[in-house]
Amino acid sequence: MKIVCIGSGNVATHLAIAFKAMGAGILQVWSQDSRNAEILAALTKAKPILNWNELDLSADLYIIAVKDDAISAVVSHLKDVKGIVVHTSGATPMAALFGAGTGYGVLYPLQTFSKTKSVNLTNVPFCIEADRPETLEKISAIAHLLSQQVATVSTEQRKILHLAAVFACNFTNHLYHLSSQLMEQHQLSFDLLKPLITETAQKIQFAKPVDVQTGPAVRDDRETMKRHLELLNGSPELQQLYETLSDSIKKTHL
Amino acid sequence: MKIVCIGSGNVATHLAIAFKAMGAGILQVWSQDSRNAEILAALTKAKPILNWNELDLSADLYIIAVKDDAISAVVSHLKDVKGIVVHTSGATPMAALFGAGTGYGVLYPLQTFSKTKSVNLTNVPFCIEADRPETLEKISAIAHLLSQQVATVSTEQRKILHLAAVFACNFTNHLYHLSSQLMEQHQLSFDLLKPLITETAQKIQFAKPVDVQTGPAVRDDRETMKRHLELLNGSPELQQLYETLSDSIKKTHL
Repeated sequence: MKIVCIGSGNVATHLAIAFKAMGAGILQVWSQDSRNAEILAALTKAKPILNWNELDLSADLYIIAVKDDAISAVVSHLKDVKGIVVHTSGATPMAALFGAGTGYGVLYPLQTFSKTKSVNLTNVPFCIEADRPETLEKISAIAHLLSQQVATVSTEQRKILHLAAVFACNFTNHLYHLSSQLMEQHQLSFDLLKPLITETAQKIQFAKPVDVQTGPAVRDDRETMKRHLELLNGSPELQQLYETLSDSIKKTHL
Repeated sequence: MKIVCIGSGNVATHLAIAFKAMGAGILQVWSQDSRNAEILAALTKAKPILNWNELDLSADLYIIAVKDDAISAVVSHLKDVKGIVVHTSGATPMAALFGAGTGYGVLYPLQTFSKTKSVNLTNVPFCIEADRPETLEKISAIAHLLSQQVATVSTEQRKILHLAAVFACNFTNHLYHLSSQLMEQHQLSFDLLKPLITETAQKIQFAKPVDVQTGPAVRDDRETMKRHLELLNGSPELQQLYETLSDSIKKTHL
């Protein structure tokens, strides 16, 4: 398989290296940033390009991994390529690729990447979508080269996936922050909570979160909740969060 | 070291087995529930007892691991023992042990235990407190037999620890539940989010949560937040949670 990689950020880097390791050939790396293009091209033995007129039209797969608002400008250069064109964005409709290549679709790895931390792609869910069944089959085969978890997800579903990830990850991380602040304000090391945080995230790998809910709200332990709200006197913001989240737990369970 | 274990629940079981594995002798297991007392006694080659007049007064350590509201009744039977008395409760003041043994304190392992899942105690933080410096030294040495992480935590600090754990774990688990519900309502498998949940919990093991916050709120990406709230039309409860948590993130970062 011959691949052209468009973009040189975190997602582009992780995918290009993984495809190379699977035996694919990375023909070219295009990037607006010549230095980044050169780095990723060197890592994958590809040719860095900056001008669209150097684009190799004969690749099997063109991976667009640029910022969301740069996708449409890239697509305009991929009308005549012989291969399939995919973007890797969670938030961009598949229709943004209309007319690209000989088929187009989405190859969206659901994980947070940073260049400095390697991620084992085998366990990363790849959400795919395609313009027609033949393309879907090809994208599915490509995704399965990298990961054991491949799911067909429509543009509408991908919006929900994004929203659910905000609850499960962005909001969760903020709760980690609020608890670490409470600890620090009372001369307690946040390290004390880390094993509990790990265990909480591990438990739901094998159980439904609703079945392993613990704490005062699910027990309707009003005495403890009252004492907790008193401890939060002086932090009306935390009191509001405590009440809103406890009410939501009670609504779910009682 | 000779130990008497009072209680036969999750915490009692994990601690007694761990102490036995470290070479301590478990003399007796007391429990209100004769069957549970027999099971844990068999596991640790101890003698199960049901009556307080059978209590061996010569042990070095008496571990109280019963329900919070049963602690005071137990303490009344431990006035004349020769060893140290500890309870393992996060929510009970140390003063509940006043007058017990030849010294008393707290040995609180900060983790969720269930009998069916083994936990490596080496990484579990043990929060300790004692009636006087000599007792603290002894309890510290005992805690270090089981764990590398031992912290002296006052009764007042333990209250905060409890509260912070509600934010970091109970509320977090509820957010997992809400996201899993969103997924299911749109025919998406919750499995897709699990690697992201794992990564989110792993990231804060080495970074401060505030430094790795991602998502639309921290970017003040109003367009995305507006679209998310529209997707939540029909769920005023989730909209309120989304706004409350996003506002709190903005307050922290902007």
